[in-house]
Amino acid sequence: MDVDKKYFSNITSRERAIFEGAISMGALFHQFVGVPVSKSSKKGLEKAIEESLSLQPAIENVEAEIKFDKLEENMSGFDYTSLSGDMLDVTIYTKVKNAEAKIRIEFIEELNYPLMYVEDIKD
Amino acid sequence: MDVDKKYFSNITSRERAIFEGAISMGALFHQFVGVPVSKSSKKGLEKAIEESLSLQPAIENVEAEIKFDKLEENMSGFDYTSLSGDMLDVTIYTKVKNAEAKIRIEFIEELNYPLMYVEDIKD
Amino acid sequence: MDVDKKYFSNITSRERAIFEGAISMGALFHQFVGVPVSKSSKKGLEKAIEESLSLQPAIENVEAEIKFDKLEENMSGFDYTSLSGDMLDVTIYTKVKNAEAKIRIEFIEELNYPLMYVEDIKD
Amino acid sequence: MDVDKKYFSNITSRERAIFEGAISMGALFHQFVGVPVSKSSKKGLEKAIEESLSLQPAIENVEAEIKFDKLEENMSGFDYTSLSGDMLDVTIYTKVKNAEAKIRIEFIEELNYPLMYVEDIKD
Repeated sequence: MDVDKKYFSNITSRERAIFEGAISMGALFHQFVGVPVSKSSKKGLEKAIEESLSLQPAIENVEAEIKFDKLEENMSGFDYTSLSGDMLDVTIYTKVKNAEAKIRIEFIEELNYPLMYVEDIKD
Repeated sequence: MDVDKKYFSNITSRERAIFEGAISMGALFHQFVGVPVSKSSKKGLEKAIEESLSLQPAIENVEAEIKFDKLEENMSGFDYTSLSGDMLDVTIYTKVKNAEAKIRIEFIEELNYPLMYVEDIKD
Repeated sequence: MDVDKKYFSNITSRERAIFEGAISMGALFHQFVGVPVSKSSKKGLEKAIEESLSLQPAIENVEAEIKFDKLEENMSGFDYTSLSGDMLDVTIYTKVKNAEAKIRIEFIEELNYPLMYVEDIKD
Repeated sequence: MDVDKKYFSNITSRERAIFEGAISMGALFHQFVGVPVSKSSKKGLEKAIEESLSLQPAIENVEAEIKFDKLEENMSGFDYTSLSGDMLDVTIYTKVKNAEAKIRIEFIEELNYPLMYVEDIKD
């Protein structure tokens, strides 16, 4: 079966680059929010996030950063916290044919909301 | 702050309808896969999925079905199973200005994969 | 196979009542933290939590409450928030033969931590 | 506040070793099931699981193995799969004063169920 032809011929490469990146962004948030994390485990978790999301269709690269200041604020008496959306600063790069999208999540203080948006798109 | 102007002026309404629906589809999968489910709890879980995803930006409607046949196959000796991707048949409807997208996840036997795709899009 | 004999004969009924309740409490937190929730979807989500956890071994009853005050504080500009550990007030009742345990999670302000503990146990 | 005195004086050290290990086992399953995983990302994910669970109270050590044979069976046409309960073989070691517990999850073919049980306990 030609998956692209059967299921994706109704959208452009540019639209599909956005589509696949957005799926992975939703996946990121809802899969990993809640994971116990500390200063010492931060790097390994960032790497696991990057590696797992990179497996998904059309993903070229993932850069995950768990924000340190937020981490300290939320640190409980037990010296770790649960990963929450406001700690996430993650960029997902997708590529479908000539179209390339850069999808970002970052916490926007003014909105009190971890916003996902298309930071850059070209085709 | 005009969020739409600041963060979404680089994509069309059609692209944003795809973007927001795809985020919610990724969210669905990675948030709810793993939930214990049985024949008796199926309806309530479908409703909770529909209601929670409907809260996200640009989502007009969500229709969630947990596939019964798959459920029976996976039923353990304890009379329940964990929700897995191959049980999901969910449609998310988004609307951004005049653009409307219908995003679907369903298990494609031939691919052995729960595929997410844009079933319909208009603007 | 006699599962109880093969896998659980090394612990008492009282210990197993604690064991099964604690598993479900860990499940609760890490499955549902991150779910989008609003005032209008709160009831349905509480019910889905109760029904899904009740399916697990030895669980007699589950009472889930998503705390309203916390919910309002965390409400973003989009009129919903993501379920977080500090909103959870959940009691899980387990029974193994004559032993009965009541396991609780509630947010302890002084610890800045959603604590899970055995609120009551008898055998 | 003396947390142990206030919240845990009603159970023995042995019971608490079981309690804390069981919470982390429930956490493991419901946090990480659904993560995209492949042969190449397996090691990093096992490490992230071990490091995150080790942060929780009373956890001494965690040994996580994602079972390779299961992984291959479930591999989709996209060369990766979603982590499911039947791939998990994880042992969590807890210690509370003199009590030490070894909690295990492994898939039991005969039950078609990923069983969590107390593999060893001493005090």
